[in-house]
Amino acid sequence: MSGQKKIKVVVLGATGTVGQRFILQLVDHPNFELAGLGASAASAGRLYHEAVAGRWKQAHPIPESVRNMTVNSCIPESFSSCDLAFSGLDSSVAGTVECAFRAANMCVFSNAKNYRMDPLCPLIVPLVNPSHLAILPHQQACMSPRLEHGFIVPNANCSTTGVVVVLKALEDAFGPLETVMMQTMQAISGAGYPGVSSLDILDNVVPYIRDEEEKMEAETGKILGGLKNNDTAFEMHETNPMKVSAQCNRVPVIDGHLACVSVKFKNQPAPSSDQAIKALRNFTCEAQKLGCHSAPKQAITVHDEPDRPQPRLDREWQNGAGVSVGRVRKCPVLDIKFVSLVNNVMLGAATSSVLNAEIALRKGYLQ
Amino acid sequence: MSGQKKIKVVVLGATGTVGQRFILQLVDHPNFELAGLGASAASAGRLYHEAVAGRWKQAHPIPESVRNMTVNSCIPESFSSCDLAFSGLDSSVAGTVECAFRAANMCVFSNAKNYRMDPLCPLIVPLVNPSHLAILPHQQACMSPRLEHGFIVPNANCSTTGVVVVLKALEDAFGPLETVMMQTMQAISGAGYPGVSSLDILDNVVPYIRDEEEKMEAETGKILGGLKNNDTAFEMHETNPMKVSAQCNRVPVIDGHLACVSVKFKNQPAPSSDQAIKALRNFTCEAQKLGCHSAPKQAITVHDEPDRPQPRLDREWQNGAGVSVGRVRKCPVLDIKFVSLVNNVMLGAATSSVLNAEIALRKGYLQ
Amino acid sequence: MSGQKKIKVVVLGATGTVGQRFILQLVDHPNFELAGLGASAASAGRLYHEAVAGRWKQAHPIPESVRNMTVNSCIPESFSSCDLAFSGLDSSVAGTVECAFRAANMCVFSNAKNYRMDPLCPLIVPLVNPSHLAILPHQQACMSPRLEHGFIVPNANCSTTGVVVVLKALEDAFGPLETVMMQTMQAISGAGYPGVSSLDILDNVVPYIRDEEEKMEAETGKILGGLKNNDTAFEMHETNPMKVSAQCNRVPVIDGHLACVSVKFKNQPAPSSDQAIKALRNFTCEAQKLGCHSAPKQAITVHDEPDRPQPRLDREWQNGAGVSVGRVRKCPVLDIKFVSLVNNVMLGAATSSVLNAEIALRKGYLQ
Amino acid sequence: MSGQKKIKVVVLGATGTVGQRFILQLVDHPNFELAGLGASAASAGRLYHEAVAGRWKQAHPIPESVRNMTVNSCIPESFSSCDLAFSGLDSSVAGTVECAFRAANMCVFSNAKNYRMDPLCPLIVPLVNPSHLAILPHQQACMSPRLEHGFIVPNANCSTTGVVVVLKALEDAFGPLETVMMQTMQAISGAGYPGVSSLDILDNVVPYIRDEEEKMEAETGKILGGLKNNDTAFEMHETNPMKVSAQCNRVPVIDGHLACVSVKFKNQPAPSSDQAIKALRNFTCEAQKLGCHSAPKQAITVHDEPDRPQPRLDREWQNGAGVSVGRVRKCPVLDIKFVSLVNNVMLGAATSSVLNAEIALRKGYLQ
Repeated sequence: MSGQKKIKVVVLGATGTVGQRFILQLVDHPNFELAGLGASAASAGRLYHEAVAGRWKQAHPIPESVRNMTVNSCIPESFSSCDLAFSGLDSSVAGTVECAFRAANMCVFSNAKNYRMDPLCPLIVPLVNPSHLAILPHQQACMSPRLEHGFIVPNANCSTTGVVVVLKALEDAFGPLETVMMQTMQAISGAGYPGVSSLDILDNVVPYIRDEEEKMEAETGKILGGLKNNDTAFEMHETNPMKVSAQCNRVPVIDGHLACVSVKFKNQPAPSSDQAIKALRNFTCEAQKLGCHSAPKQAITVHDEPDRPQPRLDREWQNGAGVSVGRVRKCPVLDIKFVSLVNNVMLGAATSSVLNAEIALRKGYLQ
Repeated sequence: MSGQKKIKVVVLGATGTVGQRFILQLVDHPNFELAGLGASAASAGRLYHEAVAGRWKQAHPIPESVRNMTVNSCIPESFSSCDLAFSGLDSSVAGTVECAFRAANMCVFSNAKNYRMDPLCPLIVPLVNPSHLAILPHQQACMSPRLEHGFIVPNANCSTTGVVVVLKALEDAFGPLETVMMQTMQAISGAGYPGVSSLDILDNVVPYIRDEEEKMEAETGKILGGLKNNDTAFEMHETNPMKVSAQCNRVPVIDGHLACVSVKFKNQPAPSSDQAIKALRNFTCEAQKLGCHSAPKQAITVHDEPDRPQPRLDREWQNGAGVSVGRVRKCPVLDIKFVSLVNNVMLGAATSSVLNAEIALRKGYLQ
Repeated sequence: MSGQKKIKVVVLGATGTVGQRFILQLVDHPNFELAGLGASAASAGRLYHEAVAGRWKQAHPIPESVRNMTVNSCIPESFSSCDLAFSGLDSSVAGTVECAFRAANMCVFSNAKNYRMDPLCPLIVPLVNPSHLAILPHQQACMSPRLEHGFIVPNANCSTTGVVVVLKALEDAFGPLETVMMQTMQAISGAGYPGVSSLDILDNVVPYIRDEEEKMEAETGKILGGLKNNDTAFEMHETNPMKVSAQCNRVPVIDGHLACVSVKFKNQPAPSSDQAIKALRNFTCEAQKLGCHSAPKQAITVHDEPDRPQPRLDREWQNGAGVSVGRVRKCPVLDIKFVSLVNNVMLGAATSSVLNAEIALRKGYLQ
Repeated sequence: MSGQKKIKVVVLGATGTVGQRFILQLVDHPNFELAGLGASAASAGRLYHEAVAGRWKQAHPIPESVRNMTVNSCIPESFSSCDLAFSGLDSSVAGTVECAFRAANMCVFSNAKNYRMDPLCPLIVPLVNPSHLAILPHQQACMSPRLEHGFIVPNANCSTTGVVVVLKALEDAFGPLETVMMQTMQAISGAGYPGVSSLDILDNVVPYIRDEEEKMEAETGKILGGLKNNDTAFEMHETNPMKVSAQCNRVPVIDGHLACVSVKFKNQPAPSSDQAIKALRNFTCEAQKLGCHSAPKQAITVHDEPDRPQPRLDREWQNGAGVSVGRVRKCPVLDIKFVSLVNNVMLGAATSSVLNAEIALRKGYLQ
């Protein structure tokens, strides 16, 4: 893609924790040029470093090129020079704002939950189902007036993302899954800032994250299923019904969602754990084949050590763009069980949106 | 039981973390008198407060009555005035030492793993299966020479304990379970002292505890099953085969093991979550009926709040002698899922041994 | 004091974290009867357990006798049957509310900062300067109209409290201090709930607590100084000028403020560390002599172990009503240095207010 | 230095946590080639990844070029092709081993404490006193037989390092310091692996680190003082006597030692805090001027925000090679107080040794 002119992009929700990650990923990006910053009315008109003062919680300082950019309100008119928006908006406002940007013919890649289960929006985990972008012409056609360029592409919930990459690799190799049981141990950064009170989580585990189990149970089928009706609807894995149960917990970990997963295959005999490990190691995804800038070299890293992956040790590997798996072994109840780790602030959030845009660019959806 | 003469007891492994808990529970106990302290050869002959210096990690100081007791080696001859031993020994020595104390006709209540799966030893969770004490005459008869008084009664692994109390209540109300899937988030105190390195667990989760999953999968059937062959063998839940799968994780929590559990009943239709909650709240155990000193008033506390139980908030309730349950709800894959919490250093360790001894006393096994 | 009729009291700010502690201390109190609960307008009219839902963060459930008490607005008229108010109010409202309760002739014992440096209000650490209650008649006389019963008695900032008890014991034994340097490591509970974001404090230290250093530097002189002008003004330690420097840090600890302190005495030669230790151990305070219900048996516990006191191990000792000290040793720059620990939610907050009221009762200020 | 042949180096103590950091810094180093790995007899003869199995605790995997290197015993004969040794040895063996490597004419750069206060060994913090290398000819001359190449250069204790860089900048600008008081909050990684038990530090602070205060108090004068007697002895800051008092605490932080420091200058009036801040920002060190590969771009980063530096947010800045300072302000007792942060595993350990070697190379001491 070198030599091409960069696409001008705006980050919506630029002062939030996801917005901050977008900014760090877009500085010096080969395809995108960070040209706008959108935030709430309270921040509009201020310099970025003033607007974000006291809330910049990254291990790297604010990039010099961004410090003195002016923040604007999240309305399309403020960013008429941009063609693409990355949204790290809170769900309380994302619905309306993203809709307005789409209507203004901008390509919106969103980390918000609002349009994930929308029947016109692909729910894309970049290592899993970029093929779902094929529904975008239909999304555009359904708008009134019909849109030439604009669309909304949400990425999945952070905890879903970490698991479906592994499930996809298993389905590719061994056919459809029939049952998935998963229990998560999720990092505090998943709740944003200020998010989880320290009094709630220090020396503690909270066995509940509002709506999280429902999201995981619903999103999994949409992501792993195909398209149907000439790419105008989602098949939702209904051809091969899949039962999914999730239990979600908050643990005192900064970054990195861990999941304990057990699965059962439709086709029996099920693969051995050795066969499963080999399939996971061999899994390559379209983002890699397309040469996307932010794609991991290895989509799934399988650990041999019995006590890995661990959030603190493995979350930064490949800049958090891949998934780590360990303890692949026989399950006495279902077929195979394993542990998976995703960096929730990278592949589980900003990296997914950016990768989705990189894929869309390479597949011609941004023109 | 008031008015009775107290039974003299020795704590084996008295300088370890479980031994320290035994000491705190036995000071001022109405049935037992702490009369001896056993520890390694390195500690023998020293005053307790000297032997334990730098390793006493309790929120309460060493009891005054214990500070200056002399520690002895773990041989029965050192404690000839005692009739009963509580063992907090490390498994590397517990096998031999406990066997010697039994041979010396002492009643051994042990927290070590060595005899848990022994075909002659009852594996007793005091809120679940004190009926298994009925195998003790057979255990004594099998010794050579036959023993009049001595026996070994191990209690279960701490993480097993927290779950089987709930499973027992469900089986009592709704018949045998067919499938149990459980994932634990276990406290660092479960690994003793110094145990888990802070570099391994701060801002981290370790998705592996050596041998723990195997213990949970094996112990569950023994505890929930009955006796057979005239109380000379364990039925192991084999009449109603039960599949059990466990995934165990270490989390940065001081005390309190949390488990996410899903179960399927043999008898269908399965109970609703409301029926299950009612059954758990109504569950009472033999330890309560016998009026045991250390028994909880409520065996199972069911929380209404969606985010409970939590280790830090709920582990001290009833001095850690009961089990807390929350989030009882329908499982999309099996029948019912829930979260349970056990205080691993109390009911999951010392409290179980002490309660087992209190039960044995009341049921006449200590004479 | 047994046999006396209990004084009816109201807790203001009853749903906050300090208010919750007041409630736990006042249930079954021999001198006080919890007769009213005051909170914000949003809570007024609701049952306590409803008003506090999701915010009760204690290891003990809400006391049965309090669950269904009705919460009222913080106006004196709501609590006309009460003679005394314990205030756990936020400083944003405490100034006005406490003033109104005083004007209504109620005795207000407050944990808020608003009146701490007021020239008419004694700033009382119950183990240090109950003699300052002598200014209360003057406070009442200055009100317009002159008050018969009402007054405000604030207790000190939690971190100040932990240090001044030790400084008082040293001054009592060795004369005035000339220099005090202190660096604190303060628990998250000091910031209330939700208070400190977990993203700010997990795997971290924040070397700043707004206004805290100023409070410590100002309060120390007022507390340790005497009264002057016939008990109508504070001497502020100005007869023996004392330089105080504080550096305050927030650390990932639930409860318990630790301070590293170095001091220099006016009178030289300064005491040896052994002499200082002896003086600390021998220190007894008026609250003990008066037989106050909540007074610790030992005001200052001096540890011999080189690595104590530690927040997690020592904060619960004596129900958090005393101060723990360790590492008393020579300072190469000043005279003596040491480490002190105070339970910030007990003696550092609710326990101080309650003890101040117990003292005031015994000294006749509540009539 | 490009174009020069790389110097072959060995890492001693290669399986420990400091050794692991040396390895990561030396892979692809422009001046040094990692040619040998030394460890205990138990590891000798094994491949590195086998020898370090279960103890590699870095966020990056073992470098591919190192995985299959063979580990040897820590005797000079095993590494005859190497000219330079980086020592991450434990102090229990470092004394003997480093002495043997020096006697074999190898240049030893050590993180161990053994030779820090040796009257022949410079104690070098690379951002502070590389001029002390001038004593090396004297060190070599005092050996028997006189050495042509071999020497030992220790770097300072991690907590000392973080403070003396700031003190050096202040002395350079405003003349000698008379008094230094410092209290540290030190990360668990400073104690190695397994090091601090999680039961000791979770929800806790330990106000004691064995020998640490003594090290800080002694090392400061040696580092900040000059050389005397024609570069054959250390002046120890005795020309301008300096009183130093340190209080050291262990906090639940992975990496990064924070210190609260107050200082008094000999020359009065002392600088204002603004003058001090300016001096710190302008400070440049010889390592920077020499163009050392591992030198930070900014030796001291002064933060404007009132709540910085913080270990988690600031320790990775400049790859941990600089020092962060904040809260520079007037001290009511001494002159100026501030907070400083050093990455104890980088500049506080391996980075110091590597930088010291880079400086020695550029100043001609490695030939």
